[in-house]
Amino acid sequence: MATRKKVPTRGYNAEGSRPQLRPIGVIRSDLKQRGQAPRQGREGAPDAWLEVNSLAAPGLEGIEAGSDIIVVTWLHRGRRDVLKVRPRSDPQRRLTGVFATRSPDRPNPIGLHRVTVRSIDRTRLRIGPIEAIDGTPVVDIKPVLRSPGLRSMDES
Amino acid sequence: MATRKKVPTRGYNAEGSRPQLRPIGVIRSDLKQRGQAPRQGREGAPDAWLEVNSLAAPGLEGIEAGSDIIVVTWLHRGRRDVLKVRPRSDPQRRLTGVFATRSPDRPNPIGLHRVTVRSIDRTRLRIGPIEAIDGTPVVDIKPVLRSPGLRSMDES
Repeated sequence: MATRKKVPTRGYNAEGSRPQLRPIGVIRSDLKQRGQAPRQGREGAPDAWLEVNSLAAPGLEGIEAGSDIIVVTWLHRGRRDVLKVRPRSDPQRRLTGVFATRSPDRPNPIGLHRVTVRSIDRTRLRIGPIEAIDGTPVVDIKPVLRSPGLRSMDES
Repeated sequence: MATRKKVPTRGYNAEGSRPQLRPIGVIRSDLKQRGQAPRQGREGAPDAWLEVNSLAAPGLEGIEAGSDIIVVTWLHRGRRDVLKVRPRSDPQRRLTGVFATRSPDRPNPIGLHRVTVRSIDRTRLRIGPIEAIDGTPVVDIKPVLRSPGLRSMDES
C-alpha cells in the first residue's frame, strides 16, 4: 500500500477481471457461529470490535465516536455457488434470486452493516449493533451520507 | 457457480485471506471518464444500464421495476495505495482518512450506489441515477431494507 503505482489507463486496476480483496481489519464479536447471528443488526445483535490492521489505520482519521458508518465485510462463511434462496430461510416462502435478498449466500458475499461508532481506541472501533460473526474480514468503511432531500442518500 | 462445494468449516470460503471478486455484471453508461462523473448519483448523474452476466442472471428473480436497490461496484479506476485524501478533491480541505470519505481511491475500491430500477429487459436493468462510469464491474446487488423505526435500515 505504501508504493505508488502508475495509474492504469484501462482495465481493472491492472489486476485482471477478478480483483482481489485485501482485508483492512476484522470483526471481534461474541457471536461465534453463523447460526447464532441475527439476520440483521437491528434484530438484537450485539456490539463488537472492529480491529483495523496497522497498515490501513491512517485511513481512519476523521471518523468520530457517535457517528454512523457503513462497515463493508466479506461474509466468509457465505456460499458463492448459490443464486436462489428462500428469504429468511423460511420454507413457506418461494425461491427468490439472491440479488433480491440480503442472504449471505451469493456470488460475492459482501456484507453491508450500518452501525454506530461507540468509541475509538487507537486502531480499534467499538461498533454496533452488528450481526457479523467473530473473525469476519472487513474490507471497507464508509461514512453515511447526509442529504437535505427526502430520500436517504445513505448508500449512494 | 454451478458446482456445489463443501461448506468450509473455517477460514475465508477456503480461498485464503485474499478472496477474489467475480463480477456479476457491468455498467453501460454515457459517462466514459472518471473526470466526467459527478461525485454522487444525486448530483446530476444519468441513468445507465446494468448488464448482468447470463450465469448470474437467475439471481435477479424477484427484483421489480420501480424498486430501489443497492448496486455494489468495483471502482476499477480507483487507486488502492491511497489512505488519505482531501474530501471532494478540495485543496482547502485537510487530509482525511479515506474511510471517513466516499473517495474511489481506497484499499478496496468498492462503490455503493442506491438507485431506482426504471425497467427490466431480461438480464439488463435500467437504473439510475448513477455516477459509475461505463465499464465499471458490478459485484453485487442488494434490496434496500425497510424499517418501521426512525432510523434507516438501508445499509444494515
